[in-house]
Amino acid sequence: MLTDPLLPAAQRPDVEHALATLDEFKAADMDAAFAKFNVKVRFRLALFCFEHCSLTPQLVPPQAPDTKNDLSPSFEFNLMFGTQIGPSGQLKGYLRPETAQGIFVNFRDLLYHNGGKLPFACAQIGQSFRNEIAPRAGLLRVREFTQAEIEHFVHPEHKEHPRFSEVAHLELNLFSRDAQLSEARKPLRMTIGEAVAKKVVANETLGYFVARCYLFLVRLGVDENRLRFRQHLAKEMAHYAEDCWDAEIESTYGWVECVGMADRSAYDLNAHASKSKVDLSAYEKFAEPQEVTETVCEPNKQLLGKELKKDAKLVTDALADMCESDLLALGAKLAAEGSAQVGGCTVTKDMVRIERVTKTVNGRSFTPGVIEPSFGLGRILYCLLEHCFYWRPEDEQRVVLRLTPLVAPIKVTVFPLLNDERLVAQTQVTATELTSAGIFNKVDTTGTTIGKRYARTDEIGVPFAVTVDFVTLEDGTVTLRERDSTQQVRVPKSEVVAVVQALCNGAAWSSTVAKYPAQAPASEE
Amino acid sequence: MLTDPLLPAAQRPDVEHALATLDEFKAADMDAAFAKFNVKVRFRLALFCFEHCSLTPQLVPPQAPDTKNDLSPSFEFNLMFGTQIGPSGQLKGYLRPETAQGIFVNFRDLLYHNGGKLPFACAQIGQSFRNEIAPRAGLLRVREFTQAEIEHFVHPEHKEHPRFSEVAHLELNLFSRDAQLSEARKPLRMTIGEAVAKKVVANETLGYFVARCYLFLVRLGVDENRLRFRQHLAKEMAHYAEDCWDAEIESTYGWVECVGMADRSAYDLNAHASKSKVDLSAYEKFAEPQEVTETVCEPNKQLLGKELKKDAKLVTDALADMCESDLLALGAKLAAEGSAQVGGCTVTKDMVRIERVTKTVNGRSFTPGVIEPSFGLGRILYCLLEHCFYWRPEDEQRVVLRLTPLVAPIKVTVFPLLNDERLVAQTQVTATELTSAGIFNKVDTTGTTIGKRYARTDEIGVPFAVTVDFVTLEDGTVTLRERDSTQQVRVPKSEVVAVVQALCNGAAWSSTVAKYPAQAPASEE
Repeated sequence: MLTDPLLPAAQRPDVEHALATLDEFKAADMDAAFAKFNVKVRFRLALFCFEHCSLTPQLVPPQAPDTKNDLSPSFEFNLMFGTQIGPSGQLKGYLRPETAQGIFVNFRDLLYHNGGKLPFACAQIGQSFRNEIAPRAGLLRVREFTQAEIEHFVHPEHKEHPRFSEVAHLELNLFSRDAQLSEARKPLRMTIGEAVAKKVVANETLGYFVARCYLFLVRLGVDENRLRFRQHLAKEMAHYAEDCWDAEIESTYGWVECVGMADRSAYDLNAHASKSKVDLSAYEKFAEPQEVTETVCEPNKQLLGKELKKDAKLVTDALADMCESDLLALGAKLAAEGSAQVGGCTVTKDMVRIERVTKTVNGRSFTPGVIEPSFGLGRILYCLLEHCFYWRPEDEQRVVLRLTPLVAPIKVTVFPLLNDERLVAQTQVTATELTSAGIFNKVDTTGTTIGKRYARTDEIGVPFAVTVDFVTLEDGTVTLRERDSTQQVRVPKSEVVAVVQALCNGAAWSSTVAKYPAQAPASEE
Repeated sequence: MLTDPLLPAAQRPDVEHALATLDEFKAADMDAAFAKFNVKVRFRLALFCFEHCSLTPQLVPPQAPDTKNDLSPSFEFNLMFGTQIGPSGQLKGYLRPETAQGIFVNFRDLLYHNGGKLPFACAQIGQSFRNEIAPRAGLLRVREFTQAEIEHFVHPEHKEHPRFSEVAHLELNLFSRDAQLSEARKPLRMTIGEAVAKKVVANETLGYFVARCYLFLVRLGVDENRLRFRQHLAKEMAHYAEDCWDAEIESTYGWVECVGMADRSAYDLNAHASKSKVDLSAYEKFAEPQEVTETVCEPNKQLLGKELKKDAKLVTDALADMCESDLLALGAKLAAEGSAQVGGCTVTKDMVRIERVTKTVNGRSFTPGVIEPSFGLGRILYCLLEHCFYWRPEDEQRVVLRLTPLVAPIKVTVFPLLNDERLVAQTQVTATELTSAGIFNKVDTTGTTIGKRYARTDEIGVPFAVTVDFVTLEDGTVTLRERDSTQQVRVPKSEVVAVVQALCNGAAWSSTVAKYPAQAPASEE
């Protein structure tokens, strides 16, 4: 937007300020900004605004840029899909906009099942629904999507991770806050170990998940040169977040946020506990008992009930909500003046005892912090398909999907060289053996040429193909072909299932080529 | 309901008739029936009615049975959850009530990707949503549920299945239509081969899926004595269905329908094709070219356009919708009288040519039939948990979940006998080795007794436990325990991963006991 040649240089700082503060805009601010920047002809700013806040001028796209009519006023818009539950139509429900909350709600049970110990993590996968104003960019911004989240609960003062040493050596493209604000605007190439040591990444646990995310994406087949980890700028982060990094993958739509990894501190559990009045804390035993001084507040419930009747609860609730300094101030006031206002009632000094006491404690309760990696699975899959798609250099009609054996839904196709009865019979035998070994395969007995059938499997990303030919009937070997190299070897039919299984489990194709004799490709290839 | 002692014998035939015709009730019929049977105090009939049709008297449960007030009138109720899409609120959307339709809509692409050949199947898993009036019975009737469906497309005249012989010998509890209507009301014990041969099950493909469903459920751990296949009665089936069988599993809520397997004929594809005007047929080439006589209808579009202007389309649409006999009758009328009414217009005999022609054809188009197994995954899981739950006979405090290694989320727990540093270190090594082999495991280093830790893993269905003790430090063997027998053997720590992997892949525990020396259980067990 800021590079738009239509934007006068004088307006640039104003626009920059508007964009920076967009998240705080109310409807009136939005209308004022739209009027100021004449947004009805600034279509891209309008779209930018749509994306970044939940206010939208009704019917802007596509009418206003065409007609240059004035815009109708902004209105607030709920990004959750509403519905009615049950026959009366009076019970309002919403489709969940993220999967995370279910885990926080279950925190007590999860902690119990982990024997009360930290750290532990809970992972979840499922559908989320957001009523996006402008779904677009292929499958990148959609209204129903599959999300996977890990909530890793940690002691807030112990964010080291026991397995960090396993990943510390990994070099990543880290687009830190400083790098984004620098002149060069280029990611740093740095090991995650160094990044945590230099406090580029806030702590080991967050760094561990950044590194594991890297390993996950690269193992799926994402091109690591088109993968970077971008730190949220201070203004992008929620006030409670300690640090956030997005895994961004480059696609034809630009850099796409595919995974968000955030240290959300204790915010979520505290917010749930405060609204639900359910204790969501963990307990730690001290190595040695400790002496602590704390402020104790003991309402005299009998007296309060007698004097204030049903208003007594207002007082006890108000006392329970008071912080330590307020309690001390109240205690001082009661001591000095004999009475004070609490919860809208007059309370006398005999109704509540407030004092500082020192006692020996063996441990304490605290709210765990949470590190949250959150995966947009559809976005990862979309970017992966782009990274895996290429043309054979010798023939641009022949497209290939370079899916790794791990990801490819069909691991191997099996076909007879020709539709000869004996070849088809052996094809079925091999296919059944592959199926018994749990290897997903597809038999192709259509009468097209072998070259066309190979091309068809290349197109849908099948990594391997087994072909039964007339040599098979003579010496019992079949042809095994690898998709990207198009190399073929002859493997005894009794060994081919084990060879394919090893390849699917990560064995290198080169080791197969080293072990078995090469087969010249059929003329159609 | 019919055995309710409150129901007078004289009313019985009337109630039976009402129940039998419930699906055809309109709101007025429902009100009449409720008045006739005094349903406000017949709570169970009311609930029965709720379950079987989409009409409900508002607020019957729980008010009316308590107050004996008159009921408000019945109203129609959509079992789909509605919502609004986009910011305008004017685009109405619905959450899908079943997963099947997505497959039918994609039929053309699926057929293309299968090289135009039948049979083929497409499977899908996902969330479905139904605004149930009365969700209840634990997790059996819920508003959001996970459904998995296979749509197996077949030639309607070739419903034999190539792999039927693999399952023909399986003996199942078949609760056929006849058996349900017989005096004994008991399922037949019969092989699926015999059932198809005797036409108890309509065809091989349906029989094949019934048998595979049996194998699936039993392999999950469903007790086969509490599993039966119930055929739909004629009145339960849709008019187009050729045969339907439900897999029913017995639970504390009675027999629960968990899988439905239906031969739905060509209904779904025909219905989609007719509404969408998209061709959803398959093509078969005849072995030999055949002579066919067919009725040809050729509108003279030029003349129709000239004479009828924009009404010409009414005529051509009406002609396209006419069946063969109507076309022949129209042809006869035009020949005899010179004109006729078509699509509300007067058409003369020169505007349309209708005649019988004989020609040689090499194949034909037809709409495939579909066999649909549909799985309610939540219901299967619920019944499975019930079937797997038991008490240790010697101590009813000790409950066990008899989950098979295939199903159990945690395959093995690993723990040190005591919280000794050396034992904990070896525990971590073994756990890491298990994880590397892809075996999901859990380390328990809580300080409780070994017996309590075993009991804890029994309770959550972990089939195996590896314990590291002081003998491990001497001779390198660990204890491996099986949950249901509570037997323990000593296995070298270098072999334990392979042993657990084999057990998880289906190896018998008895073979492990035969191979390795027994270990007397610790005193706490």
